[in-house]
Amino acid sequence: MFTREKTKPVRIGKLTLGAGNPVRVQSMVQTKTTDVEATVRQIHELEEAGCEIIRVTAPDMESAKALGEIKKQINIPLVVDIHFQYLFALEAIKQGVDKVRINPGNIGGKDRVEEVVRACMKKNIPIRIGVNMGSLEKDVLAKYGKFGIARVMLESATRHIKILEKLRFHDVVVSMKGSDVTITKEAYRLFAKRFNYPLHIGITEAGTVWSGSIKSAVGIGSILAEGIGDTIRVSISGDPVEQVKVGWEILKSLKLRQKGVEIIACPTCGRTEIDLIEIANKVEKMLEKVDAPLSVAVMGCVVNGPGEASFADIGLCGGKNQAAIFKKGKVVAVTKDEEILPVFINEIKKTLIEKGFKQEIKNIQKFV
Amino acid sequence: MFTREKTKPVRIGKLTLGAGNPVRVQSMVQTKTTDVEATVRQIHELEEAGCEIIRVTAPDMESAKALGEIKKQINIPLVVDIHFQYLFALEAIKQGVDKVRINPGNIGGKDRVEEVVRACMKKNIPIRIGVNMGSLEKDVLAKYGKFGIARVMLESATRHIKILEKLRFHDVVVSMKGSDVTITKEAYRLFAKRFNYPLHIGITEAGTVWSGSIKSAVGIGSILAEGIGDTIRVSISGDPVEQVKVGWEILKSLKLRQKGVEIIACPTCGRTEIDLIEIANKVEKMLEKVDAPLSVAVMGCVVNGPGEASFADIGLCGGKNQAAIFKKGKVVAVTKDEEILPVFINEIKKTLIEKGFKQEIKNIQKFV
Repeated sequence: MFTREKTKPVRIGKLTLGAGNPVRVQSMVQTKTTDVEATVRQIHELEEAGCEIIRVTAPDMESAKALGEIKKQINIPLVVDIHFQYLFALEAIKQGVDKVRINPGNIGGKDRVEEVVRACMKKNIPIRIGVNMGSLEKDVLAKYGKFGIARVMLESATRHIKILEKLRFHDVVVSMKGSDVTITKEAYRLFAKRFNYPLHIGITEAGTVWSGSIKSAVGIGSILAEGIGDTIRVSISGDPVEQVKVGWEILKSLKLRQKGVEIIACPTCGRTEIDLIEIANKVEKMLEKVDAPLSVAVMGCVVNGPGEASFADIGLCGGKNQAAIFKKGKVVAVTKDEEILPVFINEIKKTLIEKGFKQEIKNIQKFV
Repeated sequence: MFTREKTKPVRIGKLTLGAGNPVRVQSMVQTKTTDVEATVRQIHELEEAGCEIIRVTAPDMESAKALGEIKKQINIPLVVDIHFQYLFALEAIKQGVDKVRINPGNIGGKDRVEEVVRACMKKNIPIRIGVNMGSLEKDVLAKYGKFGIARVMLESATRHIKILEKLRFHDVVVSMKGSDVTITKEAYRLFAKRFNYPLHIGITEAGTVWSGSIKSAVGIGSILAEGIGDTIRVSISGDPVEQVKVGWEILKSLKLRQKGVEIIACPTCGRTEIDLIEIANKVEKMLEKVDAPLSVAVMGCVVNGPGEASFADIGLCGGKNQAAIFKKGKVVAVTKDEEILPVFINEIKKTLIEKGFKQEIKNIQKFV
């Protein structure tokens, strides 16, 4: 199995995907590509949220022509999404995009593919082949039937790859997305057994922000947990900033990347004597903009509290109207009532200094 | 590996866990157990949300004595959570609980364990052994060190199991929870390779509602995706109703259970010509209380739309100010502007009738 350490490195602008490089979070803008101002504004918002690669669509020539201007104004690699029209791809490449997402089998004949491949080679930019459960090739589907969808996806990917490999083009990233988690996972597994191209992971059409976040976390998370996946995109119907935030949270859950503070909080039960949920939410909000490898535990009781808090850099463990503050398992302060939160935040500040992240203290937000 | 079809069946009240039975969603109340009225009220709310097994804590004798009254007023199996105190366990069993969560190695000596086991045997109720990464046994931890936590958890579980097996008690469910997804997953895998007891899956202290939902989805989801897990509990710091909703959403993502309508919605991009996010959110809200095995797609464009909509029972695919409605891939209506939503809902009603779920039409909520 070509797990993420064993995939081949593929360069996208200033980033390298695959070969054990960090799993990158990407997203796609929702604006019209021809509206350069709105598109750049949304990309800047996404960069701010932690988006590392951005994709825009070019459904017409005017959009393709706008890409150069967009590229100039942004800081992260720009990927163009093209369906069927090789001329838009050629224009996008001319405009300086960092990657082209196009399925070579769908752009009509060898000459056209060759032209696109030559343009990519000249500029050293990769192609992403995007196989999608939602638009499978009818002849392959007929071969395996609807219970063999993962195999259909693999064969479809293989077909596109072969076209590029014949032209000695190996600068390839592949995605095998579907809206069904189990089938999608199986498709990625089959792929990783056969090819070492880096994989772009996603669950398509996952749903609205709430249900789509959970479905994406289950799907993308369980694929990543197997060691498969070099970049991810969360496809939920909502603000793309949410897609980026969910993407990071998935990577953080698996400790594949670190971003911001990790909050460990207990779900409370009949043993809880303080308003733990309120404290946890406040602490999370206050530390939202802090970017340091810090784990903070907010625990309700003595049964699991000190144990979990000993794993965390700093923890609070509630008792009756009072709380003990732990660092790496040792009590450093006992506090009560309204003083709990300010004392805890103060100890968090000290911990940031100890860890060499003094500059992050200014990012602690005011008590809300 | 003892995947969920191969675990032994264990009866909890009217439900059977393990042996391929449906993966059950459980939760824990946050009220004081001694406040019977508040506890029963919360359990009823949780039942309404789909909670199938409920756990309450008994940190004192008064709580244990309240369990009989609680049990009388609820409709789902009642589990008691006990730490160290075998007398509370005996009282809880007398009060008629359906399962006891207690770690036999922690209740002080063979006589006490025997007494609890005999009481359970007499009433035919199982014991859940709950190993928690947050409260590991010091001697086992010393043996494997902090890089062998999953092995520590396995050995700790084995120790508790052996105590019960010596007494010929096999009516056992086990959990191996931790706040670290990767370690927790490894612990469950190690366990499933050795024992066939049904497993209760969870990520402890996952965090606040937002981050904790994602972390739980990644953790619980990726363990379930391997075929491990007979019941789940989502531990997030917030309303326990959220825990139940997230639990169901995880199971639905993996098609392990069905509840309510599945909404497939695309994330929109520069190709989208209608306000898809608004339509998707409205449709989700309107169908929230409908319980039928129905998949509804809301798609923004023609590239992936019709393909995905052909997998769904019914789908809407947006164009410029208009939309086509598909059923199993075939267009059944074309509609535009303000008529899109009412026409779509009307087609959903017809689909419910066709599928034999006419009685669910009344649960479609008014346009909001």
